[in-house]
Amino acid sequence: MAASSSLFSSSSFQGVMSFQNTKLCASYSNFVYKQPMHLKRSSQNNGTVSCRALEVDKSSSSYSVGKKFQVTDVIEAQQFDRDLLGAIFDVAREMEKIEKKSPGSQILKGYLMATLFYEPSTRTRLSFESAMRRLGGEVLTTENAREFSSAAKGETLEDTIRTVEGYSDIIVMRHFESGAAKRAAATAGIPVINAGDGPGQHPTQALLDVYTIEREIGKLDGIKVALVGDLANGRTVRSLAYLLARYNDVKIYFVSPDVVKMKNDIKDYLTSRNIQWEESADLMEVASKCDVVYQTRIQRERFGERIDLYEEARGKYIVDSRVLEVMQKHAVVMHPLPRLDEITVDVDGDSRAAYFRQAKNGLYIRMALLKLLLVGW
Amino acid sequence: MAASSSLFSSSSFQGVMSFQNTKLCASYSNFVYKQPMHLKRSSQNNGTVSCRALEVDKSSSSYSVGKKFQVTDVIEAQQFDRDLLGAIFDVAREMEKIEKKSPGSQILKGYLMATLFYEPSTRTRLSFESAMRRLGGEVLTTENAREFSSAAKGETLEDTIRTVEGYSDIIVMRHFESGAAKRAAATAGIPVINAGDGPGQHPTQALLDVYTIEREIGKLDGIKVALVGDLANGRTVRSLAYLLARYNDVKIYFVSPDVVKMKNDIKDYLTSRNIQWEESADLMEVASKCDVVYQTRIQRERFGERIDLYEEARGKYIVDSRVLEVMQKHAVVMHPLPRLDEITVDVDGDSRAAYFRQAKNGLYIRMALLKLLLVGW
Amino acid sequence: MAASSSLFSSSSFQGVMSFQNTKLCASYSNFVYKQPMHLKRSSQNNGTVSCRALEVDKSSSSYSVGKKFQVTDVIEAQQFDRDLLGAIFDVAREMEKIEKKSPGSQILKGYLMATLFYEPSTRTRLSFESAMRRLGGEVLTTENAREFSSAAKGETLEDTIRTVEGYSDIIVMRHFESGAAKRAAATAGIPVINAGDGPGQHPTQALLDVYTIEREIGKLDGIKVALVGDLANGRTVRSLAYLLARYNDVKIYFVSPDVVKMKNDIKDYLTSRNIQWEESADLMEVASKCDVVYQTRIQRERFGERIDLYEEARGKYIVDSRVLEVMQKHAVVMHPLPRLDEITVDVDGDSRAAYFRQAKNGLYIRMALLKLLLVGW
Repeated sequence: MAASSSLFSSSSFQGVMSFQNTKLCASYSNFVYKQPMHLKRSSQNNGTVSCRALEVDKSSSSYSVGKKFQVTDVIEAQQFDRDLLGAIFDVAREMEKIEKKSPGSQILKGYLMATLFYEPSTRTRLSFESAMRRLGGEVLTTENAREFSSAAKGETLEDTIRTVEGYSDIIVMRHFESGAAKRAAATAGIPVINAGDGPGQHPTQALLDVYTIEREIGKLDGIKVALVGDLANGRTVRSLAYLLARYNDVKIYFVSPDVVKMKNDIKDYLTSRNIQWEESADLMEVASKCDVVYQTRIQRERFGERIDLYEEARGKYIVDSRVLEVMQKHAVVMHPLPRLDEITVDVDGDSRAAYFRQAKNGLYIRMALLKLLLVGW
Repeated sequence: MAASSSLFSSSSFQGVMSFQNTKLCASYSNFVYKQPMHLKRSSQNNGTVSCRALEVDKSSSSYSVGKKFQVTDVIEAQQFDRDLLGAIFDVAREMEKIEKKSPGSQILKGYLMATLFYEPSTRTRLSFESAMRRLGGEVLTTENAREFSSAAKGETLEDTIRTVEGYSDIIVMRHFESGAAKRAAATAGIPVINAGDGPGQHPTQALLDVYTIEREIGKLDGIKVALVGDLANGRTVRSLAYLLARYNDVKIYFVSPDVVKMKNDIKDYLTSRNIQWEESADLMEVASKCDVVYQTRIQRERFGERIDLYEEARGKYIVDSRVLEVMQKHAVVMHPLPRLDEITVDVDGDSRAAYFRQAKNGLYIRMALLKLLLVGW
Repeated sequence: MAASSSLFSSSSFQGVMSFQNTKLCASYSNFVYKQPMHLKRSSQNNGTVSCRALEVDKSSSSYSVGKKFQVTDVIEAQQFDRDLLGAIFDVAREMEKIEKKSPGSQILKGYLMATLFYEPSTRTRLSFESAMRRLGGEVLTTENAREFSSAAKGETLEDTIRTVEGYSDIIVMRHFESGAAKRAAATAGIPVINAGDGPGQHPTQALLDVYTIEREIGKLDGIKVALVGDLANGRTVRSLAYLLARYNDVKIYFVSPDVVKMKNDIKDYLTSRNIQWEESADLMEVASKCDVVYQTRIQRERFGERIDLYEEARGKYIVDSRVLEVMQKHAVVMHPLPRLDEITVDVDGDSRAAYFRQAKNGLYIRMALLKLLLVGW
């Protein structure tokens, strides 16, 4: 399934949320939720999905093992509406305060997380494993999970999941195929977190981006965000644009070389949600107006033989000290990392350079999700 | 050493059991045992082995650190007679009941297991590491232990073991050479578990297979077992046939394509032990009579250039819904995994499909062995 | 930076020690130290370094979290003078006594160590990870850290460090480039330990070598040490020669094939420090006089196409039972491992074969350093 279609077709989204034994599809426009009392995971996947709107009740976040998290798997950014995001961010802030050897640092003691990585992503894996361990949990690492399903042996992903779920309490999966996380979640009797599935989704990155904006700017309604760089290929900016549409009075500026402009599906979606957006070729002018300048790396691998186009695109919009000069005092520069030279190193020392804090926020968001999926609110 | 010779030649088996400072060889036909009181591992290997029969006393299995396990290393399936198997299975059942954060979940706290894998086997490694962590122990992982003994550096296995034993309390080793585990055990002053050594042994797989049969069928005496698929190359079915011969009134059916028939050494051995066996080309008829249908994968790599022979062999005996139909209500389908299509996926939903439970049983068997080797009965 | 220049140029050494918010350079000849009371790491690296001599006070080593360790990163052997070495060795001896489940085994509970290995070194990694776990700490493993900075993605080491420091409390780094550890330490706001940076330094190996000599011989002043084998390329013997120069009345014998003789920089340094040294071609005669025979592997990779020279050099000085015969009763054979046949296996059984004890001492030295860097004296 292509990312563009999966991103907005609610009919294609299923099997990743469960409420009182009923698989529940998120209707993106009006998804609300509440705490299920006796949620039990269904060990079978009959392929049927029912949708209904539920009331919101998000009191009682605490370290104690509380009410069940209404999400059983984290597969797509679209699962999360603004209320749920807000509730998760509250937990993430609690996670920031947990100190070594405190009771909070042991809330996942006895739980085992399997990191099932079909392609390497050391940064993401470390972040999840650190999150698990910061909460007292343990980790089974499989950096080369491709062995499980090697061409020679030919095991299906579903069989692998059925084996691994016997050894662990939660699976964090990175896969090279779009849709793989959804298949895994449909099979597993334990929670699955998508840590990136090929060109598909990377929902925890999307959550940490929004969380970072709220932490840095103090609000999400009414903000102005510049998305800069490779807007055609970066799943990060696509997911971020989508999640920003959950907030009010947001304005988004697209600043990118012509060859990697934001695609129409996102633009159309934003329009349908009454989110203002604008394309601009003037980074300086945009930067002076925005709360957030979200820079991204131009991905060379997308240009194939056309190194000339890559070099041209790559050098066009650089965040440097001149850009900082025009930015407002409260504004921040973000980047999903790794960066090359699209943000110059002299920016690093400025307090508005938020990208390393952003990376660290990934830890808290992942701690929050692990906590919620394993022991509830 | 070839598997066929090592499997039945007691004179080739040595150095893996120790009793009161004396290396003890298992005499396969009448091996009995008891609890040694002050067993100390000998740190030297002088190559001499003495054999004697001992009395059985297997009371007092409990979580408390108890009497020493009479096995100091797990190297070959032949180490285990029916009494010892029964005692280990009792412990495995206790392991199934251990709950998170319970005292039982901490019995290996402070112990370190090194997984020294000279060839990758993520499934087996995960199972052992999960077992260790479920008991509160810690893990040092070496997925690419070949570095230790790379051609360029040329360190011997013995030197590697002497280094690793300084860092850990138990070594779980996977190696590409038959006999490597025995060499490691002869060197190490700490317990060694063989997690597969090339075409040689994979004793914990054999134990979990027998454990699964007992758990699923309720008994081991008097059962009928069909071994299906690649019986020539699969060490799993060879070891299983061997261990089944420890029980009374067992009948074994061999169902395989002609090119991968069970070899004569196993047939001769079964005959010598008065175990009934029969070859059959009719899977349906056999399945209708058996308690266990143990399916295996036809291993393509064994056929070299003869893809035609592989394809012919591979399609010949498939366990599907038609086979299920003729099977008895209490019977089960087993498979060591991974599977390709030798069991069709529509079998998975039937309660008699035991293969994923079988994989999970590997966890309990390994927990039991780790517990026994590190803290005793 | 070449090892030879970095080893003795104090002006090239900076940024790895911090005292009361001031980056402090070690003056190698007269470096002394004391406990800082409120040492805080500077999170910024302004490139300036100040030097001053400090008073010594090394009382109060204990398991309790005590006074801050005056070293914030372990980058080069030169950081350590004899007083500091002695104090660290005291802690290492305490580490030897820590028992499973004792309070001492939990002093790093809640701490996370990231092993950031840009090239594989299973032996060193295992030793560090075992050390961390023996003290109750947790580990994030990155065996293939090169991904972080792959040519395709091009992230700088500094950016990687800034990300990883968000996930962990201490970084143990192995890198293929000399100087990489120093760069990492200059960036990180958490301690960095150099676990080998290319042809540069491997300071924990140097420390464990000296610690082993003290443990085995009982003293460091007045000893006679033979350095044997590849003295031109081995960073181990170079660092050891350097550290031995901190002690009184030491005599060093160099025994090596002509093609891999000790270089002049070390000889000149020893002379400048009034350390006696002598080259000899007679291993038997030297061995009969020495307290320590430190054998090393002739590294084939240094000989390129000249296999003939390699073979000649390799066979020239072998430590075997004949060498043992002439050695004194209290003397020991050491080797940094792995060994090929430069020590014959019949030596292993002799109590003077100290090389596996030496490997184990690496565990205690690393435990001591982790303890000191994370919770102080």
